[in-house]
Amino acid sequence: MYEGPIQELIDELGRLPGIGPKSAQRIAFYLLQTDKADVEKLAQALVTVAEKVQFCDVCFNISEGTTCRVCRDPRRDRTCICVVEESKDVAAIERTREFRGLYHVLGGAISPIDHVGPGDLHIAELLRRLQDSTVTEVILATDPNLEGEATATFIARMLAPTGITVSRLASGLPVGGDLEYADEVTLGRAFSGRRRVGA
Amino acid sequence: MYEGPIQELIDELGRLPGIGPKSAQRIAFYLLQTDKADVEKLAQALVTVAEKVQFCDVCFNISEGTTCRVCRDPRRDRTCICVVEESKDVAAIERTREFRGLYHVLGGAISPIDHVGPGDLHIAELLRRLQDSTVTEVILATDPNLEGEATATFIARMLAPTGITVSRLASGLPVGGDLEYADEVTLGRAFSGRRRVGA
Repeated sequence: MYEGPIQELIDELGRLPGIGPKSAQRIAFYLLQTDKADVEKLAQALVTVAEKVQFCDVCFNISEGTTCRVCRDPRRDRTCICVVEESKDVAAIERTREFRGLYHVLGGAISPIDHVGPGDLHIAELLRRLQDSTVTEVILATDPNLEGEATATFIARMLAPTGITVSRLASGLPVGGDLEYADEVTLGRAFSGRRRVGA
Repeated sequence: MYEGPIQELIDELGRLPGIGPKSAQRIAFYLLQTDKADVEKLAQALVTVAEKVQFCDVCFNISEGTTCRVCRDPRRDRTCICVVEESKDVAAIERTREFRGLYHVLGGAISPIDHVGPGDLHIAELLRRLQDSTVTEVILATDPNLEGEATATFIARMLAPTGITVSRLASGLPVGGDLEYADEVTLGRAFSGRRRVGA
């Protein structure tokens, strides 16, 4: 509908997830009115990501170098590994500041429907990391859905003979949520996982 | 939260209109998994827009060259100019394929609250285009809101002495809409603008 470059930009933006043709048009026109330097900064950020971001050799988290910031940090507790599906999960957990150990990013979850089996995930690399017996606890923090549960169960079974403590993140009511709006499965988990309070 | 380039990209994306931090993160991770060539294509589209897109010397529509595609097209009716607020409006009208004349993009609407007066719009340039008496009709297609109406009224008054036919787009019920959900102003306009049907 538009002439040359602007239409091309609208088309390219429309390919991004969650951006429809209307949003793409709004963004393109916004960029037209923006300072040229700012647009070039965004373009540069895109190119840099495409060129520089790689995955950590140790934990497969996204990283600027061959080893990620968490794996490089000498203050992290090297006896505990938290297993997650994606780098996004690492960021979410880091935001809580609750966890001081290391991570292992699987790169997804077991999902027969999407043809993702254990061999497609970084599970062999996890086992290799556990061989030198530095690690004494593995926390399985895969998503609390069908695929995440299946993946956690699979890894827990593989680790059973090793004697390493294996735990799973607690399921229950989200903090700040409303009991009456919780789905039955979550509420059921909250009951079975109830904890004693008081002395 | 992330290391280096990916966080920078998330920050840059988060500055775009309608993209919050969550969407920015989703897009950034999507781009990480995309083919590097595709990311570079998007970056190139951004740079090209910043460098090449300009505004038509005649009508102020966005354009790749000094004159836009519509103004260059010899098949367009040069006796009729449709006045709109933004280039987006040109695209919307072009999609209808109802109009074969030329456009004039004002670059906004009169809005005292935003300190936009007639002098901030391309109204003087419109008057200049009307001087050689090629144009016999001006259609005022500014938005059907307070600012758009004020702008249309202002231009209509300026053109009154020229003898040029001045019209305004019809207001009424949106096609495919539901009468019971129409607001009073729209329904009122639909009544006052009612047209005879049949022979």
